[in-house]
Parts: sequence; C-alpha cells; structure tokens
Amino acid sequence: MSHNSFGHLFRFTTWGESHGPALGAVVDGCPPGLVLSEADIQPFLDKRRPGTSRFTTQRQEPDAVEILSGVHEGRTTGTPISLMIRNVDQRSKDYSEVAVKYRPGHADYAYDAKYGFRDPRGGGRSSARETAARVAAGAVARVVLGPGVSISACLVELGGDAIDRANFDVAEIGRNPFFCPDAKAAARWEAALDAARKSGSSLGAVVEVVANGVPAGWGAPIYHKLDGQLAAAMMSINAVKGVEIGDGFGAAKLRGEENADAMRPGPDGRPMFLANHAGGVAGGISTGQPVVVRLALKPTSSILTPVQTVTQGGEAAEIVTKGRHDPCVGIRAAPVAEAMMALVLADAMLMHRGQTGR
Amino acid sequence: MSHNSFGHLFRFTTWGESHGPALGAVVDGCPPGLVLSEADIQPFLDKRRPGTSRFTTQRQEPDAVEILSGVHEGRTTGTPISLMIRNVDQRSKDYSEVAVKYRPGHADYAYDAKYGFRDPRGGGRSSARETAARVAAGAVARVVLGPGVSISACLVELGGDAIDRANFDVAEIGRNPFFCPDAKAAARWEAALDAARKSGSSLGAVVEVVANGVPAGWGAPIYHKLDGQLAAAMMSINAVKGVEIGDGFGAAKLRGEENADAMRPGPDGRPMFLANHAGGVAGGISTGQPVVVRLALKPTSSILTPVQTVTQGGEAAEIVTKGRHDPCVGIRAAPVAEAMMALVLADAMLMHRGQTGR
Amino acid sequence: MSHNSFGHLFRFTTWGESHGPALGAVVDGCPPGLVLSEADIQPFLDKRRPGTSRFTTQRQEPDAVEILSGVHEGRTTGTPISLMIRNVDQRSKDYSEVAVKYRPGHADYAYDAKYGFRDPRGGGRSSARETAARVAAGAVARVVLGPGVSISACLVELGGDAIDRANFDVAEIGRNPFFCPDAKAAARWEAALDAARKSGSSLGAVVEVVANGVPAGWGAPIYHKLDGQLAAAMMSINAVKGVEIGDGFGAAKLRGEENADAMRPGPDGRPMFLANHAGGVAGGISTGQPVVVRLALKPTSSILTPVQTVTQGGEAAEIVTKGRHDPCVGIRAAPVAEAMMALVLADAMLMHRGQTGR
Amino acid sequence: MSHNSFGHLFRFTTWGESHGPALGAVVDGCPPGLVLSEADIQPFLDKRRPGTSRFTTQRQEPDAVEILSGVHEGRTTGTPISLMIRNVDQRSKDYSEVAVKYRPGHADYAYDAKYGFRDPRGGGRSSARETAARVAAGAVARVVLGPGVSISACLVELGGDAIDRANFDVAEIGRNPFFCPDAKAAARWEAALDAARKSGSSLGAVVEVVANGVPAGWGAPIYHKLDGQLAAAMMSINAVKGVEIGDGFGAAKLRGEENADAMRPGPDGRPMFLANHAGGVAGGISTGQPVVVRLALKPTSSILTPVQTVTQGGEAAEIVTKGRHDPCVGIRAAPVAEAMMALVLADAMLMHRGQTGR
Repeated sequence: MSHNSFGHLFRFTTWGESHGPALGAVVDGCPPGLVLSEADIQPFLDKRRPGTSRFTTQRQEPDAVEILSGVHEGRTTGTPISLMIRNVDQRSKDYSEVAVKYRPGHADYAYDAKYGFRDPRGGGRSSARETAARVAAGAVARVVLGPGVSISACLVELGGDAIDRANFDVAEIGRNPFFCPDAKAAARWEAALDAARKSGSSLGAVVEVVANGVPAGWGAPIYHKLDGQLAAAMMSINAVKGVEIGDGFGAAKLRGEENADAMRPGPDGRPMFLANHAGGVAGGISTGQPVVVRLALKPTSSILTPVQTVTQGGEAAEIVTKGRHDPCVGIRAAPVAEAMMALVLADAMLMHRGQTGR
Repeated sequence: MSHNSFGHLFRFTTWGESHGPALGAVVDGCPPGLVLSEADIQPFLDKRRPGTSRFTTQRQEPDAVEILSGVHEGRTTGTPISLMIRNVDQRSKDYSEVAVKYRPGHADYAYDAKYGFRDPRGGGRSSARETAARVAAGAVARVVLGPGVSISACLVELGGDAIDRANFDVAEIGRNPFFCPDAKAAARWEAALDAARKSGSSLGAVVEVVANGVPAGWGAPIYHKLDGQLAAAMMSINAVKGVEIGDGFGAAKLRGEENADAMRPGPDGRPMFLANHAGGVAGGISTGQPVVVRLALKPTSSILTPVQTVTQGGEAAEIVTKGRHDPCVGIRAAPVAEAMMALVLADAMLMHRGQTGR
Repeated sequence: MSHNSFGHLFRFTTWGESHGPALGAVVDGCPPGLVLSEADIQPFLDKRRPGTSRFTTQRQEPDAVEILSGVHEGRTTGTPISLMIRNVDQRSKDYSEVAVKYRPGHADYAYDAKYGFRDPRGGGRSSARETAARVAAGAVARVVLGPGVSISACLVELGGDAIDRANFDVAEIGRNPFFCPDAKAAARWEAALDAARKSGSSLGAVVEVVANGVPAGWGAPIYHKLDGQLAAAMMSINAVKGVEIGDGFGAAKLRGEENADAMRPGPDGRPMFLANHAGGVAGGISTGQPVVVRLALKPTSSILTPVQTVTQGGEAAEIVTKGRHDPCVGIRAAPVAEAMMALVLADAMLMHRGQTGR
Repeated sequence: MSHNSFGHLFRFTTWGESHGPALGAVVDGCPPGLVLSEADIQPFLDKRRPGTSRFTTQRQEPDAVEILSGVHEGRTTGTPISLMIRNVDQRSKDYSEVAVKYRPGHADYAYDAKYGFRDPRGGGRSSARETAARVAAGAVARVVLGPGVSISACLVELGGDAIDRANFDVAEIGRNPFFCPDAKAAARWEAALDAARKSGSSLGAVVEVVANGVPAGWGAPIYHKLDGQLAAAMMSINAVKGVEIGDGFGAAKLRGEENADAMRPGPDGRPMFLANHAGGVAGGISTGQPVVVRLALKPTSSILTPVQTVTQGGEAAEIVTKGRHDPCVGIRAAPVAEAMMALVLADAMLMHRGQTGR
C-alpha cells in the first residue's frame, strides 16, 4: 500500500532526495541470525556509484552505507535493518530555472500536477539517487538468498546497437564501463556514447538480468506471479519503459511448438528443460530454470540540446538541462536491476516457505 | 499481500477454477452511491466470452454474472461487491493423462513443485477462465472512473505480423474476430490463424491498450508508479511475457532529444505535449496524455503437435494437448487488458484523492 | 488495506449483507494438501447458528456452507477457497421506519454519514450475520493449525453477573445455551435474560477465549504483535467494546513482582511458568503458555423499549426496534471469537515460518 | 504486512533499538503542501522524554528529532518523511546477566524462542525507546489532521487507585508528573509511587485518550473498523494488556436502553447525542462524538525484587533487574497513546477521502 515500500514478507521502504542530507532504506522481515555487516553491502553500492568513468555523472558520492539497526554482534536480529547513505556532493547550484520550467521527459510537470509543489533540486525524490537505497537493500536480500542463488546483470543493447550473443562472455562484463558481455560491442558503444555525449545528447539501453539457482516453486499464481512482481520491480527503476521475461516480445512471434520448453528426465532425477523460452517462470511460479528478465531504458532527458517546454505559469519556453548527468542511465541501472531481482526473490522465498513449509 | 487480490484502496480478489462450480470476484473499497447492475458488467464479459468465433475455444459459457452483495436499490453501498459466474460447460473428460504428464509451456510442473499437488481439470486455477472474474471487476472499475475515462484495447501484431499504423481505424476493431484495427491485417491474420489451427499449432500476439481522459497526477513515485502497477497488472494475465509503456523497448533506441516529449501552452491553458513517447506516464505519474501500454502474449502451449515431456514419476514421455483451446490466446486477452487498465486506474484515482484531496 | 479482508499470509475476505441472497468468505494463502470438506466447517457454523434457543434470534437459517473453489479431491490446493452461505430466512418486512429513523446504538447514522446511503434491511453489512462468514473461514484456520492447537470460548459474565472461577467446568460449556462454564451462573443467567427479554431490554456479556498448544515464538514485535492482532480481530466483532489479554485491566492493579510470571525449568526441558498473568504473550510474541483473551460485548441496541432519536431529515422522533433480535449478542459471539482466534493464529504460524523457517 | 509498519494510506515504519546509534520513523503517504518543521515535532517528544521527574527512568536523552527527507522549504512534498533521533545516553553496562537469564515479564524468552537470538542491551527492539519514533510520527499525523481535531491523554488510574471523575480538570493534567487530571489523586499517586519505587517494585496504570473534533464518517466496516484500528494501535504500545472504547468493559454491565446513546436534533442541524457510551464509534465508523479510548498498562517487570527464572541453558536461577527503569511505564505511555490516536485518525481521514471523495 505504502508508496515507498516494496515486498511483502521481506519488505523494504526507501526515503530521501537527491539533495537532502541523506537517503536510506529500512529492510523489514529479514530472517534472524544471518551474518551481515557494511562490508556485505558496500561492494554493490560501489558498482552503482557515480563518477567512476566518463560515461556516468561526475557527481562524486562515496555512497558509504551505515547500518543503524537490526544487527547485533554481526548477525541480523529479525528486527528492521535501517541503512543510511549520506549525500556529500550536492553541488550548490541555482535551481531557479528548473523550478519554473518543466523539463520534457522528466517528472517535473507530473509532480506539480499531483502535489502542487515540488523539490526541484536535482530532481528531488524522482532522482535516480534513490536507487542507491535499493541497491543497499538488495545486498541484504542476497544474504537472505544465500550462495545458492547468483544474480548477474549486463547491458545487451546500447543506443539501439545490440550485442552479438555469440560473443557473450561473462568475464567481459566487469572489464568495460558498460557492463557489456561482448568486447566488440563495448568498443562500438564507447565511440557511440562519446559522440552522443559530445553532441549534448543521450542514449537508451537494454539491461538483462539473470538469476541462477532459483528452485522450482517460488512465486504464486494470479496477482503475485513471480513475473508480475519482477515486472513491477523493474518498472519502478528510473527510465525503464519496458520489461520482458524469457523470450518476452519475441515469444509473440513464435509458434506454440517452438515456444514450449520441452522436458526430459534430468541427470539428478529432476526434470531437465531443453530450452528456456519461458525465462524460468511458468504460471507465475519458478520452474528451476534461470530466471531471465530484460528491461528497456529510455535515454536520459537531461541533455544539452534545447527542447521546447512551458513554464509553471503556462508560458512557452525553451530549456537546456545543464548539470551532471549520465549520458546513458541504462549503464548504472544494471546493478539496480540485480538488486531488484534479489529483493523480489528473497520475498518470494519467504512467502513460499510461509505458505508451504518448504 | 494476498496472492489472489490486486489493488489497494480499490481492491479485488478473485477465486475459482476452470472446472469448479463457479468463479468470482469480490470488489472492495468501491465508492458508494454509484449506479450499478449486472447490465453494466455483462457486455464486457460478452466481449471476452469464448465460443464466439472459430478462433477461440469452443467451450460454451454464457458467463452470466450475478451481483451477490454491495448493491442496494441499484446503487453501490460502499461495501464489498461479490460477483459470481457459474461454470456450465465443464466437459466431463478424462484428465488422467495431464494429471501425470507435464504439459511443456504450462504451469503443471511449477504447480506440482510448489504445492506438491494440483487440480488438473482444465488447468485448475491457472486456467484463463480466471480472467472472466477480473473482466467483471473491471466493469465496476469503469463505473468508478466514470465516462471521462475511456479504455480501448486492440491487437497490433499476431503471429509476428504487425498492423500498418497508417491503416489504424478504431471502428474496424469491432468488425473482425481479432480486435484488429487494420482491416488488411485482419484478413492476413485470418488466413494465418486458420493455417496454424489446422496444423495443430498456435500463434502469439501483441495487444495495445490505451486509456484516454486520465488527468495528470494519478500514480505515485517509486514503488507505486502508475507504470509499475500497470506492468504488474498486465503481467498477471495468462501467457503475457512482456509489457511496455509508450515507446517501450523502442525508446531504448531513441536519442534523448527524440524521446523527450516537447511541451507547448495548450488551447485550454494547460500544457500540451507535441508527442507521447512516454505513453502518458512520467516519474510514475500520469501526465494527462493517453496512457499507452502494450503486452506480448506467447502462443498457447495447448497444441496438437506432440512435445517431449516427463511424467510426475520422472519418466520420459510425449504429450499432445487435446481439448478445446484458443489457437491465439492473445485475442481474448484484449478485453482482459482493458479490465486491468480500468482496475489500476480506479485504484490510482482513489489513492490520489486520498493523499491529496484532489 | 482492504476494508473487508483480515490477515496477511493467511488472509480472508468476507462479503454479504443480512438480507442479500448469500454471504461468504474467500480464504487465501491456505497451505496445500490439507484435508478439507464442508463437514470440517459445518459444526462451527451450527454452534453459531441462530434460532437454537429462546435466548437467540428466532431467524431460522441453516447456514449451510458450500465450498466453491480451492479444494480438489478433498484436499486444499493452495489456491483461494471460496465459501458461500445462502440466506434463506430474510423475512419480508417493512424497513421504511429504520430507513428514515436512526436506531441509537446502531451504525445507521454512522453509515449514512460515511456513505450518504445505506441498506436498511436487517442492518445491511453491519448485521452480525457477517460473522457466519468468518466462522466458516475460522474452521479452515483450525485445519491449518492442526490438532496441536485447541481453541475454546465461553461466557464469563452476563448482565454484569460473573461466573465463580471455582466452579469452572469445561464440560459444562456445552450443556447450557450460554456457553457458560459455571452451572450455577448459567441458572442465574437464564432467569436474568428471560426477565430482560420480557421487559423489552437486553444484556451485555464478557467472552473469554483460550488457545492451548500455541508454541512459543508466534507473533512479531511492534506493529504485528500477536496481542495487537488479537485486539483488532476481536474488536472487529459486532458489539465488542473492549479487549484484554491475560490479566488485562486487572494487571494495571498489580505490583511488578505479582505480575511477572516466574519461570522454572520444566519437566520436558523447556521453561515452565508458575503463572500466566501475561496471557501467553510477551513483547507481542507467544510464550508457549495458553493464549487468553477476553472481550466485552455491549447489550444489543435492538430493543422494544422506546428510545429518543432523530430522522434522516433531522426531526426529533422515537424508535422501537421490533424484529428478531438476540437479547444478548454476547452468547453467539463465543464461536465467533474462537474463529477469530484461529484466524489470527494461523496467520501468525505461517508468518513465523516464512521469516524464520521454523 | 510489514511487522514494523502501521497504517495504510498514511503509514509509518519505525526502526531502532534501545542501545543502537539512533532510532527513527519513515512516514509515507503524507499529503503535500503542509507546513512542517522539527519545531512541530519536538514538543511531543519532550512530553514523552525520560528523566524529567523521579517517576521516570533517569536515562538522559534529549530526543532531538532530525527531518532527513520529505520536506522542502518548510513544506511536505508528499514523499516519505524520514525522522531520526540519536541515542546519546546508552550507558555502557554489563549485559551478560540478562543475556543468559530470562527476565520474567519481559520479552526475553519469547524473542529467543522466535529468533533464536536477541540483542540484550536495554531490551533491544522490545525497549520502550521505540515509542519515541512513533511520537515523532504522531506529530506529523497531527499536522495532517489540522487544528480541528484535538487529542489529549491522561492517567485515570495508577496502582489500582482511580481518579474521581468529579475532580476532572483538564488544566491539572500538565501540572503534575503523572498526566493526572485530578489533583487529589495526583497527591496520592506521588506517595504510592514513591513507596513502590523505594521498595523495589512498580505499579500499573490506566490511560485515557480522547480525540475531539473527529467528524462523523471516518473508519470503515468490518476489518477496518476505527475501533479495531485503535485497539491494534494501543495494544502495540509496550506493557498494554487491555483496550476499551467508550464504556468498554463497563458497557457489558449495562442494559440495552442504558447503553444506547439517544439522539436529538442539534442546534447546528446535525444530530446531537445525549450520551457517549459508544465512545464516538458505531459500527466501526465515527459518529461525530469524542472518540474515547482507555488502555491498561501492567507494572514494569524491571524491578529490584528478586524473581525466579531460568537461564538460556535451562538452569533454575533468580534475577534482579537493575538499571534505569520507569517505576510506572503508564505515565510516559500517555503521550504515546496520543500519538497512536493521531496516527490512526490521519490514516482514517485519508482512507475516507479516498473512497468517498468527502
């Protein structure tokens, strides 16, 4: 119900704005007795942290997380875990222009229409800085899931230029600033994004996130389908305009016999699938195959190219969005998508255990 | 939290299986004093009803709705509205084969993995018959929204063959059995679907649902974004594998200046947008533009073509799914997608009014 | 969130009015594989059923329950269980007086103030007939809890006349029409209630409900305390004006050393308590002792004694409430309180299992 | 669903332990545009603050609140309001005894049974320090309610000694350290509590909280009754063992005609009630009369009198609870009960507005 909470039995609530003193997450319903410290969380924040290459915003934020509650002598107590990240590089700039002119593609006008009022500094609550809080919460979710479940995201398209699946190399993902698994694509993207950035433009991207090790049986029919929860989770990430599971929109082009993942007896006695068009979810419940989700991110609207707009007073105007912005918000969305996958799965795990005792 | 409920302030719960005595929905939180009778609901059920052309299942169900509570002297009382639809054409057939062999592409295996047990008759709870209940609930949501909001769905792709947007004619949607707005495409689809049906196969589809008249300000940031709610709602429909808002995956291919919907002062004093790449939602809040959602549906897995599978006991097997099935489940998903759009919007309307008093 | 739902992981929703065609409950989140049929539910409805003595309303309702979904071959499938009870004895009487005159002590005026509109027939949704639905749901909750947990309610006070604890005899509860464990008190109550009934008045009561066999660890701190859930559950029963746990208001008169339940090593190795002032709950979590709750019920306001009131139009008036009413609504509240105890405990059991795996 | 959240449309989540670095609340769903600063919150925290008389714990905590988000230029933005209070006087003492011996009357054993693990420092999460967070949240709720609703709590019984209603003087409440409206009772309580304190014991209390100015129509039938929400809210306060509305347990001793609050046409055209046995709630909906709730608090179990107990290892032991404790926790519960009343009412106000538009 709560606008800023996500999840059910394992649930988190985030708070904070781009230019406030801090932002954070409260994680509720965490199982007790798990080993947890800031060191389990910080690496994931570092992966999402801005300012690490010329392809992300130059805002310098250490994004150092503090655990304020819910952990005693290094173990979770089962009570709420409050995570806080201080903002340190809120540059003092003049926000008077964006306060009165709506930036097309941003939430400025929608916020004013809803609330009659808005914090214009750095986008306020609509800033992607909020995603730091969920990356922190997502790290807790990974601890809940344990080592049996591994989650990894990468970019499979940037500026309309897709990777070649034949070149897919997991090891390559960490070697370039794009979380790109195809070294050749990464080289092309570097040139394309440099060009876009220099021309005052921006590019979109498609992120793919895969969870391995999810057992069959998580999720639930109808309105708590695992894929329904994943769709809501991914669509909540800034700039996401589309979500697909498994073959997704491609499945709509297949014939029934092509799309049905045939099954065979597996070596361990459990069924083995000969394909994974379904992306690891059938009827809203995990099948034991890898859970595969892709999300489409629009190009950031914060660009130096002038765009026609109107003012709060209804006058025609033109706006150029200066400041420090990501030329492709899709890049830093990869660790955020991993976090959301972990958060959905941890909740599904506890919900399944609660209902079935398994 | 509840697996079979959807929505917050305006909320509904569905129940029932394909082959049980009845199915239904309980609609809670409906505003009081609205004029409502079965006649407001039945037309939407008729639109979704099976057996109306050779392109849908031949199961004959009148899908006649009964209002069992929440309405007094023709007006809603503000208390729960119980809607019931009796199943009348549960054909007595032998389900012993599907009870022991998993149908690839269906939820059979996932249900067994989760619950250790399953109702195999007609897919049980995973049957698309459940969508009748939400179409009934959706009709109530339309009454809540009032005549200012209009919602319409159509198929824009079938079997990988997309419509030509230049031929888009709203009036055409009701003239063919495909909810297709392009008469030429409808003719091609007829041939393609007949061929698929005769060869024991099935086809996928893409449905587009548009809501006009939604004021700016509905929805809420972060985890109750209007697009996040829509994504969860649409992904809960049987066979849906992808959801996109506005340009969706296409937005990932645009440059920043192409994607930002420029604004101008409108004739009525309110801002006017020069494009709607955003699909009527920015920062999770409606902008006053049409809300545009597309969903990808996989081809039904209930086909006559034999597929490799395993039995509950782990033996290799082959299965052919006989019975009465839709050769393209995407067709009847159009009225279901309209219902889910209405249900999400009605909830967003009441939530917005609750928080802001507007 | 939903006004007519209760519970979290194990959750139910009720619908229906006093004079509609039927009423019911949808139970969601039930564990799969449990043996369940109407025969498991009916005895509890029979216990609550009206018309069984001269001390309850003379309305004749068989309260026969139908299971419409969620059960296959006699076992729960894990999907929603729809329970329906048809109303058969809605006497056709003239409701024009109560439609325009507010009955003091009833919800008539409050409903009109909230909804601007109301179903006056038999109290509409505010009728205690709604409690039949939860008694049905409660029977499912008992199946979830299993035979290890036993729940029993009795009246410990009627018309201000309390039982003598020295006479407490569990076997006596079923022998008199008052669920009274003290035979001597039952005799006094018979006389008192006959007198009240004949003079056109009504009496209040205090119900005590005890759950034995609840293991230590159910419930959760702060806003999901077991006693907080029980308080909400009991206060939701018609006519309840007070709820207490363990010594309740009596605990406020004790000194610290009197109230603290001393502990000793128990014969089974687990701690044994020397008293149960706490009523089986500490810090919102069960201690393994019996869970003890008492609820105070006001006398019904539906009496033949004339009371001053006003009309919908604001005129002064006088009203006498004819019709078939319970002279002491507290009596039939006993099986309802048992049901609510079972429903709270079943949810707590699943929630605890979900979070901790125990 | 979440264990540490309360409310629906207006919702708050608390976090923090007695001896952690800080505690706090995240308030979600607050209407936008309200004037809010720390100065609106601090007075309520000061009222609850420990160490202000010899009748409360001597722990010195300034309980200074910081607003970390959700407010821009002195007005609420509609986004989550994060409130933080740092702990400054966590005295470094040895908790090794309470870590291994269960304190009877405390949650120690129940926490261990649930989580298998517990933060023993100052009671960890079960400490009444958590209530500071809700008092802060409650101050925001008062701003939402506006000046039309006023909420006031007082003690009406301490150590079993009740006030004389004839002496009730609102002005007296702030003049003594007991929030006592009867000057004579306050004098008696001072002597009684001094004696209890010196003898190493503690006393219970009954708190009464009244909300004036609540319009008719807030709350909702069945499982979201206003009194049901209030019961859950009050029972969530540490040491509360009973809750009653209006005449509460006293209503169970009245006859029907005594208990029904007669109505007359009021001077302003709206109905006027001649009594308020109902405590301002009928059928779960406010009637426009003052909302009256009482809560019973047990004596604190943290006493110097030795009590029999067991150790974690199951050995018989004896325990004396040293440290700084309130000899009557009921005193500081008065401002907490006011906060919970405000929080329930603010949520009910927004929910009512959402459903009905009023």
